[in-house]
Amino acid sequence: VAPAQVIYDFSAEPGNNELTVREGETVTVLNQNVGGGWIEAQNSRGESGLVPEDYLQVSVCLFITDYTPKQYVGPVWLYPQSPLDCVVADPKKGSKMYGLKSYIEYQVTPNTTNRPVNHRYKHFDWLYERLLEKFGSAIPIPSLPDKQVTGRFEEEFIKMRMERLQGWMCRMCRHPVVSNSDVFQLFLTYRDEKEWKTGKRRAEKDECVGPMVFSTIDPEAPELDIIEVEQKCELFSRFTKEMDDGVKDLLNVGNIHWKRCTGPLRKEYQKIGKAFQNLSSVFNTSGYTGEATLTDALTAAGKTYEEISQIVAEQPRKDLHFLMETNNEYKGLLGCFPDTIGVHKAAIEKVREGDKMVAAGKITTQDKGTMAKRISIMCYSLQAEMNHFHSNRIYDYNRVMQLYLEEQIRFYETVRGGKRVGSIKW
Amino acid sequence: VAPAQVIYDFSAEPGNNELTVREGETVTVLNQNVGGGWIEAQNSRGESGLVPEDYLQVSVCLFITDYTPKQYVGPVWLYPQSPLDCVVADPKKGSKMYGLKSYIEYQVTPNTTNRPVNHRYKHFDWLYERLLEKFGSAIPIPSLPDKQVTGRFEEEFIKMRMERLQGWMCRMCRHPVVSNSDVFQLFLTYRDEKEWKTGKRRAEKDECVGPMVFSTIDPEAPELDIIEVEQKCELFSRFTKEMDDGVKDLLNVGNIHWKRCTGPLRKEYQKIGKAFQNLSSVFNTSGYTGEATLTDALTAAGKTYEEISQIVAEQPRKDLHFLMETNNEYKGLLGCFPDTIGVHKAAIEKVREGDKMVAAGKITTQDKGTMAKRISIMCYSLQAEMNHFHSNRIYDYNRVMQLYLEEQIRFYETVRGGKRVGSIKW
Repeated sequence: VAPAQVIYDFSAEPGNNELTVREGETVTVLNQNVGGGWIEAQNSRGESGLVPEDYLQVSVCLFITDYTPKQYVGPVWLYPQSPLDCVVADPKKGSKMYGLKSYIEYQVTPNTTNRPVNHRYKHFDWLYERLLEKFGSAIPIPSLPDKQVTGRFEEEFIKMRMERLQGWMCRMCRHPVVSNSDVFQLFLTYRDEKEWKTGKRRAEKDECVGPMVFSTIDPEAPELDIIEVEQKCELFSRFTKEMDDGVKDLLNVGNIHWKRCTGPLRKEYQKIGKAFQNLSSVFNTSGYTGEATLTDALTAAGKTYEEISQIVAEQPRKDLHFLMETNNEYKGLLGCFPDTIGVHKAAIEKVREGDKMVAAGKITTQDKGTMAKRISIMCYSLQAEMNHFHSNRIYDYNRVMQLYLEEQIRFYETVRGGKRVGSIKW
Repeated sequence: VAPAQVIYDFSAEPGNNELTVREGETVTVLNQNVGGGWIEAQNSRGESGLVPEDYLQVSVCLFITDYTPKQYVGPVWLYPQSPLDCVVADPKKGSKMYGLKSYIEYQVTPNTTNRPVNHRYKHFDWLYERLLEKFGSAIPIPSLPDKQVTGRFEEEFIKMRMERLQGWMCRMCRHPVVSNSDVFQLFLTYRDEKEWKTGKRRAEKDECVGPMVFSTIDPEAPELDIIEVEQKCELFSRFTKEMDDGVKDLLNVGNIHWKRCTGPLRKEYQKIGKAFQNLSSVFNTSGYTGEATLTDALTAAGKTYEEISQIVAEQPRKDLHFLMETNNEYKGLLGCFPDTIGVHKAAIEKVREGDKMVAAGKITTQDKGTMAKRISIMCYSLQAEMNHFHSNRIYDYNRVMQLYLEEQIRFYETVRGGKRVGSIKW
């Protein structure tokens, strides 16, 4: 159940189960998934019926957790009971202009319809631009994985891009405000080219973007204490900056380690392996008796080192990869916060000057009231966003650390296993 | 029981249990350890008694193994039943010239007398020069560990030098010809400064050096087929050259790996550890609930990496060290063979030209016979030396490989152990 603002007058046609609404009226959304461009709504008099979805601006509800000393985290977004998710898979090469231009199309399947839709990278990019324009003031929208022109059809690259698009889509799906937006739903569930084109055009003409997005948010809660919010905001600002440094540091050492493992270290173990095997071959030519145990041991040691060389070189893709991908995602996400926080701070500053501006006759008392209400919504949504970030962060890093440590243990067991084979032979 | 050549006439004093001998006579040594400069000998008539040791040149016996298809290795040195060994330990700083000059004295204790004697590095060097001069034509005498002037009293350096002197002494002790020589025995068993000085002077005046040493070797066997010996020699020459390459290669990659482990790799693991711990600290400041498991895991991962960093840095000293030391010793030893083999080849060439030289009247038929006998002894001793080298090589490398692989397994178990701690905490 979410409230919606009526943005145009609409007169019901009798007998069609429609509801007459007037601009400025607030209605309650009963069913947003009626289809065919209709929403089922109820007005304040208890009458219900269908209204064209373009005539309504559905608010996003914030939910404020009850205060209990241990669990209190402040405002959180209203999360859907079954979270949206999607699978990006099956990249296929397509071409147009008689084969002069070729591209890769990815299949995107949401868990709601279970019906795959196709999208090229540039569609993802279009979606990113829309989300950034619409939500950028309130919600950090991380960049898409880098564009890269050369070697675009190289298998490895396509797989990597797909993985990253998957990661990006998952993150967007997990956000209750973003995932519930028309443009995001269009991207995931359009039924044919016509619906896609129409939806695109409508999304591009969407006027509820930037700071306007706050007007669609209804915190259902009293106004907040600005000083407390400012302190929280300051804390969060410092936290994201420090986490940004920490993440970049980890990415940096991770990259260096990755390169060392796949480069010099791999070659070095190979060389050690070769040196042992070479000595074994030389010893075999001695013509002396009683040499077999020794040359077997040398050969085994040599082979073990060659195995270690391979294991070491393949290891980063097994453990570091996921750790790096997650940190890369967070690096992108953290890069968005300064802007979001900046918008927030500027708004608080404005409210602070409200009294002066009223005194100077620059704004009316009513304007000041509206501003205060707006800033309160912004504060709620920033806090909800902070909490969203933290809970996601803990979830993501828990997962990545668990996988990482498991892979590490597997690694050392593999290496040791190899060693043991060497030693048994011995 | 070894034969000895009488080199000066000696007339026994009656009632003193002495034996009269004439220059050129061959006697059998009954007891070389009578002491006081005497040897108990028996002449061909069965009479026995004491002869001054300076009047006799005791031969070294070669022993020829019986031919059995699987075990036949050809001539070997006559090895003592209880092999000589010694311990180099307890380096002490001494000084002379009123403290203006200081030096390190090592305690050397042979397993025969169990009585420690003191020697400075320059005494070892003196011994090396004597052994090289006396046996260099027949037996490869590896160089002493490098001299190094700067930081000579640095603890680490002294320990390293002691270890290497120990290795060198062990190798010399293991050689039945070298270890049985007067000069080597003097070095290990002198009782006082006077005995040491006298022995030194005598050793420096020893005329049985260089090719002359072959005259003290009695193969107790028929002359050898020169073509067969030449082939064996060629094979051994190629073997030592190839082993030299192999050993140098292993030393090279070993050194690179050592440097990487103690340098960049150590630092890298440290940095990874710090990055994890840093992220953990940042997360701890979030003020969000339910963070503890994650920050514990991050801290544990960070600490594990710091432990790995230390383990990795300390590893070379545990496993590579002994492998490198042994290969370094062999590098030195292998460097001596070209000379030894060169002497051998030149001698064979001379015998080849024997007939021509007799025809040209340059040498007599008797000279040629003596030469042939001499070359036969050289061949026997080279083969004995080859076999000595091979059996020592197999023994040394078996030992070093076993230790190396054991340490390697211990290493990976330690690292994995660390990982497991991290994972249990998790």
